[in-house]
Amino acid sequence: MAKSDVKKVVLAYSGGLDTSIILKWLQTTYGCEVVTFTADLGQGEELEPARQKALLLGIKPENIFIEDLREEFVRDYVFPMFRANAVYEGQYLLGTSIARPLIGKKQIEIAEKVGADAVCHGATGKGNDQVRFELAYYALKPDVKVIAPWREWDLTSRTKLIEFAEQHQIPIAKDKRGEAPFSTDANLLHTSSEGKVLEDPAQDVPDYVFSRTVNPEDAPNHATFLTVDFERGDAVAIDGVKLSPATLLAKLNDLGRVNGIGRLDLVENRYVGMKSRGMYETPGGTILLAAHRGIESITLDRGAGHLKDELMPKYAELVYNGFWFAPEREMLQAAIDKSQEFVTGRVRLKLYKGNVTVVGRESPYSLYDQELVTFEEGAVAYDQHDAQGFIKLNALRLRTLGQRKKRMGK
Amino acid sequence: MAKSDVKKVVLAYSGGLDTSIILKWLQTTYGCEVVTFTADLGQGEELEPARQKALLLGIKPENIFIEDLREEFVRDYVFPMFRANAVYEGQYLLGTSIARPLIGKKQIEIAEKVGADAVCHGATGKGNDQVRFELAYYALKPDVKVIAPWREWDLTSRTKLIEFAEQHQIPIAKDKRGEAPFSTDANLLHTSSEGKVLEDPAQDVPDYVFSRTVNPEDAPNHATFLTVDFERGDAVAIDGVKLSPATLLAKLNDLGRVNGIGRLDLVENRYVGMKSRGMYETPGGTILLAAHRGIESITLDRGAGHLKDELMPKYAELVYNGFWFAPEREMLQAAIDKSQEFVTGRVRLKLYKGNVTVVGRESPYSLYDQELVTFEEGAVAYDQHDAQGFIKLNALRLRTLGQRKKRMGK
Amino acid sequence: MAKSDVKKVVLAYSGGLDTSIILKWLQTTYGCEVVTFTADLGQGEELEPARQKALLLGIKPENIFIEDLREEFVRDYVFPMFRANAVYEGQYLLGTSIARPLIGKKQIEIAEKVGADAVCHGATGKGNDQVRFELAYYALKPDVKVIAPWREWDLTSRTKLIEFAEQHQIPIAKDKRGEAPFSTDANLLHTSSEGKVLEDPAQDVPDYVFSRTVNPEDAPNHATFLTVDFERGDAVAIDGVKLSPATLLAKLNDLGRVNGIGRLDLVENRYVGMKSRGMYETPGGTILLAAHRGIESITLDRGAGHLKDELMPKYAELVYNGFWFAPEREMLQAAIDKSQEFVTGRVRLKLYKGNVTVVGRESPYSLYDQELVTFEEGAVAYDQHDAQGFIKLNALRLRTLGQRKKRMGK
Amino acid sequence: MAKSDVKKVVLAYSGGLDTSIILKWLQTTYGCEVVTFTADLGQGEELEPARQKALLLGIKPENIFIEDLREEFVRDYVFPMFRANAVYEGQYLLGTSIARPLIGKKQIEIAEKVGADAVCHGATGKGNDQVRFELAYYALKPDVKVIAPWREWDLTSRTKLIEFAEQHQIPIAKDKRGEAPFSTDANLLHTSSEGKVLEDPAQDVPDYVFSRTVNPEDAPNHATFLTVDFERGDAVAIDGVKLSPATLLAKLNDLGRVNGIGRLDLVENRYVGMKSRGMYETPGGTILLAAHRGIESITLDRGAGHLKDELMPKYAELVYNGFWFAPEREMLQAAIDKSQEFVTGRVRLKLYKGNVTVVGRESPYSLYDQELVTFEEGAVAYDQHDAQGFIKLNALRLRTLGQRKKRMGK
Repeated sequence: MAKSDVKKVVLAYSGGLDTSIILKWLQTTYGCEVVTFTADLGQGEELEPARQKALLLGIKPENIFIEDLREEFVRDYVFPMFRANAVYEGQYLLGTSIARPLIGKKQIEIAEKVGADAVCHGATGKGNDQVRFELAYYALKPDVKVIAPWREWDLTSRTKLIEFAEQHQIPIAKDKRGEAPFSTDANLLHTSSEGKVLEDPAQDVPDYVFSRTVNPEDAPNHATFLTVDFERGDAVAIDGVKLSPATLLAKLNDLGRVNGIGRLDLVENRYVGMKSRGMYETPGGTILLAAHRGIESITLDRGAGHLKDELMPKYAELVYNGFWFAPEREMLQAAIDKSQEFVTGRVRLKLYKGNVTVVGRESPYSLYDQELVTFEEGAVAYDQHDAQGFIKLNALRLRTLGQRKKRMGK
Repeated sequence: MAKSDVKKVVLAYSGGLDTSIILKWLQTTYGCEVVTFTADLGQGEELEPARQKALLLGIKPENIFIEDLREEFVRDYVFPMFRANAVYEGQYLLGTSIARPLIGKKQIEIAEKVGADAVCHGATGKGNDQVRFELAYYALKPDVKVIAPWREWDLTSRTKLIEFAEQHQIPIAKDKRGEAPFSTDANLLHTSSEGKVLEDPAQDVPDYVFSRTVNPEDAPNHATFLTVDFERGDAVAIDGVKLSPATLLAKLNDLGRVNGIGRLDLVENRYVGMKSRGMYETPGGTILLAAHRGIESITLDRGAGHLKDELMPKYAELVYNGFWFAPEREMLQAAIDKSQEFVTGRVRLKLYKGNVTVVGRESPYSLYDQELVTFEEGAVAYDQHDAQGFIKLNALRLRTLGQRKKRMGK
Repeated sequence: MAKSDVKKVVLAYSGGLDTSIILKWLQTTYGCEVVTFTADLGQGEELEPARQKALLLGIKPENIFIEDLREEFVRDYVFPMFRANAVYEGQYLLGTSIARPLIGKKQIEIAEKVGADAVCHGATGKGNDQVRFELAYYALKPDVKVIAPWREWDLTSRTKLIEFAEQHQIPIAKDKRGEAPFSTDANLLHTSSEGKVLEDPAQDVPDYVFSRTVNPEDAPNHATFLTVDFERGDAVAIDGVKLSPATLLAKLNDLGRVNGIGRLDLVENRYVGMKSRGMYETPGGTILLAAHRGIESITLDRGAGHLKDELMPKYAELVYNGFWFAPEREMLQAAIDKSQEFVTGRVRLKLYKGNVTVVGRESPYSLYDQELVTFEEGAVAYDQHDAQGFIKLNALRLRTLGQRKKRMGK
Repeated sequence: MAKSDVKKVVLAYSGGLDTSIILKWLQTTYGCEVVTFTADLGQGEELEPARQKALLLGIKPENIFIEDLREEFVRDYVFPMFRANAVYEGQYLLGTSIARPLIGKKQIEIAEKVGADAVCHGATGKGNDQVRFELAYYALKPDVKVIAPWREWDLTSRTKLIEFAEQHQIPIAKDKRGEAPFSTDANLLHTSSEGKVLEDPAQDVPDYVFSRTVNPEDAPNHATFLTVDFERGDAVAIDGVKLSPATLLAKLNDLGRVNGIGRLDLVENRYVGMKSRGMYETPGGTILLAAHRGIESITLDRGAGHLKDELMPKYAELVYNGFWFAPEREMLQAAIDKSQEFVTGRVRLKLYKGNVTVVGRESPYSLYDQELVTFEEGAVAYDQHDAQGFIKLNALRLRTLGQRKKRMGK
């Protein structure tokens, strides 16, 4: 792509040093008009400073877009994913993965609105995020030009970056001059940390890396109990109080934070081919997953539940790899959503020093039938004698196999 | 099956009241010779009293079989299952399920040895265990006769059982006269409890139900750290000390017990068709699973790991349903075992009030390559520019789809 | 179930000898009112004789239900199944399996309408059809009583059946006195044959067993060409002429029949546990499957198509086993239907002496893009240099594995 | 990669014009020593002319490697794949895909032997073969340098290629001067054709494209019958005559060719992201697949067979995409091979004008048990009354769901 081909680019802009450098680099290298997009996904930062900084760097007011995406993020991305009980490689709750498609989608919408021909993100060339951003871009605007500065420029060391910033009068906060000991990503669902001090997987995560949760050791000595209400697979209330999706997740985050819940130290497999070690804090999400499994346990049929469990790893892999807007993710979502019609009811949970425990569940749609299970006389639907026929027909093929073995002297 | 057809039956005999009643009922109803088999699977009970009781009930000494199966249980059943990271319905570690096939297999071996034509178990007609026992029986001896007293007799209440016991001079411990408030099953891997007081899934598990673990609240206020060494997917040492499979699991149980680890309150789907609520304590197994996932995280290839994750729910379902000796379980095991060749190394774990956390992992076979991941110049194998081609070809079909949508005006 | 418990039963009644015997047996054994249901699923038999026969056997006119289900059968059962490209055990097009749920559903609807408390079918105790009927019954009316005469009565030989018929003045066609050399089931989708002369799987199917197709050897010496149009995954026209679902399938059957298409000689695994040998003729369905795969090949995305292929065996198994009304079948259907939105276009096929070949496909929604594939200069979306990055990142984990092997001297 | 870095390269050399141009281009552009590797995979060409041509182009005699790989190809690649019944996208028998890993492996072995640091193939930059070659290279020699001329050079038209050949005194057969109307790949398993005249998927494949099979219309008017014997999943004899793997496949090819068997006109999804249209002729393989399914139908357990069917699409995708040497393919192979222990016996087939039909199967290990299936009195292992219990327990969850629906008024 010739650099002169780009006329107008929509940059995912945080207002921080790195994306400010990108902003200026786009202006100087591509000579194109830059449109900034700053989203509130619950990362816990003020957005107005990003506007000021963009203005300072020469962005026209009408080219500055700032949007609060928290409700959309939780309602249309986080919640659908939690309906699937998605965990990547058995453990990771996909907090970063699920945010990227939404940011990408918004950049494309702005590009269409302002007539931009290109989009740009600040993800590095070794990670998954570049893939997630760009697959979203390409799926939603197939002819878009994609600029990935970290794969293109020669600012390949901290020193060069700082030099570039100084040359271009980009303000540099004092603590940004040196290398960060690790890098983070945060949104309403989680905070992730990786790099530098975390790179030796044999070494403990240093305490100062954690920012979203207290140490279990420092959490209260008494358990906290709460209820979560679900409707059709989505959480709708805490302790009986109806809450919007983002408010609900924020509330769960608060509860998780103080009780030391949702820390994960993981070596995972990146889509781009290598292993990496990350540290994740997903306080509210960890509670939500347990609660969702809890309400499913009494409202979801076995056939549906087992099918969901079989499909889940594939679903999680698709989300992790950035295929949110791919037809196969949508197909799996259709199957999953179909199963959630009666996933409605209340789960009671206990939080205590890092533990989340489901201690009770109830639902008007419960499939749990005490009369079927009770070891008493008089149950009607379940006749113990049926078990014999059930077992014998299930055993038939195994008996035939056993006869063959005997016949063969094995 | 005419009752007179049975000549000699091998009974899975615990020495407790219920299987003693079965023993006597077999003698009186079937008029057949009874052979007892009592196994030590780590349930924590003396076995010699079972011998005395069997003698007392008229069993010939040569018809009494008592065997310590702990090492075989852990080595050939528990460990292969943990190579699969098997959890049923996302949570249950299959502690009861995995023990039944071994007991069934031993009964059949004894039946072949003593020339018995029948086997008998004490599982109820509403549960999974009858299926697990009988599928094992039929697979290993297709022509065996199976007696399942709880599906056959008319001793359908506690009162009738006690009456029968009194009639036949079966000793009755004082606390066995009334209904137990719940029933339990225990072995080296876990203790399960279900029934009665646990039957309302909205109600908390009463504290007195727990027997294998302390309350997290009562666990030590300071964390315990340990290392677990693996060889080819199996745990072989704790804190650098080599241990036999059963000894190792027992040691993990001790560590888990005091730290309040491995409690699970679950509503699950039984194979026989209804939901039931169970409470499980799997202290050592919970640690083992975390440790195994930890060592796999650095030694297992992504393709292998993701395939394992996709196959796991099916594997767990097969074990839960009692299909241990079915060809499809053996096929999955072959695939899983194939993946474990280099799952060797050391995991460091932190135990604290119910939490198990992997805090470090190392291996001579590690696939984690710091040089690939580091955000530094100079990495050789990974060229950031490759990422663009990777993304663009992965995006190609999504772009084609996007073009179609645009063409269609959607 | 006490026989006196049944007040009114809805019988799936063909009008043939066997179900007439069942009708009379219900009257004499259960002493209950019998309601007959006769459905036209395209089996190619007149339905009015069934009414006459029912009247003759003492059924009240208002208790005789006759319904033409052909359109509903193809539209709501056959077509959804073909969207999945469902084949059982790699070969069987599920012609019998897919008809049972619909018959069961109609029986239950009639039972609700006439206030019947029971339903009855004429399937044997060794086959799959009993399962398929009864799972449908139980799913749609959980408290229904099910009568399965072949599992209950003592008319266990042809002689006894004929005797019973004679005793009760049931007319017996001459050719029904002896044992049939095989049994058949027919509907608009297929004819199946099994039993007796087919039971030795080493022996050829005798020529007289075939009834729906000519021998390929006897088919025309020149190929027949046709086009099939699809809309959203369903066939809607042949040679450009719009046809209703049942009319379309009938037309394909005609074309298949004369060209010797759709014969299958198969040993399959029954759900009840044994293997059986069947002979199937599915002339139209065989063409339809080829055509559907043909139109999908240009309109379905790879990710969607591969997911469909992975889900298909499970879907086919569910249909075969009778779980049409189970939530997991509905979940899979939701996923499959989601994929069919753009499966629209025209396929051209060649039929010749047993062969169906797709020879052309076109669609306004085609994802096939000649410019991408052509080995010419100038393609834009596909840059060959991207392939290098694509391969190198896909190879990264394999290289890491290769390095480990080398390091280990393996 | 700097061109001067390459010292010695092993080229997959066919002796044809294109790879001769590559040979010369490597010498002139990379200035490196070229080692040629020419393999006989049953493509039906003499190999000695390749030696002469290599010598003519200046390759040292000790740098010319020619190997007959036919037996290894069929025994270690084709047969293992057929154990899986692998078909890609429901239809393609993977004839090209399965050959590439073996060629790649041999190139690497030669590179190790002669101390070469690079390998080179003649696959284009838009196809799957580049991926298959290079994934094999990288897996087996992680530090190898890979040269893919079609992605690198500027010989981007037929004219330029011919010019280059003329400049370098490369002999040019007359019919190679113009563009070929399509390109082909052939080996003992199949011949594929694609490109140019095949690129419009709405148009018939021209007759002159076919080279390995006669038109079904031109095949004999009488059927050919044969038997294929299997041992542990692999074909070992035809009509009772033991044959080596390659000889057996060649014999099946002869039989398939004259009977017009194994043509496939397909639009498929390439791994590199676009759809392409190919024409495949797999005469022997088509017979082999039918025969293998036939012998499995009586010797393979249902659980094993269904698991195989579920795993197959993933297996086929891995082979198609070039991941033969990936751990997940090896895991699946381990599972599949485990299932084949008793897949031994004889299948009788009928070949007639494009049709392959299994007409009989027998095995000393048959699981087909006529006594179980026969609709007669007296069967022992199968008691029809068991069916009731089997159905009722399988229905239990559906009834519970039905009750919920009723309760909810739905």
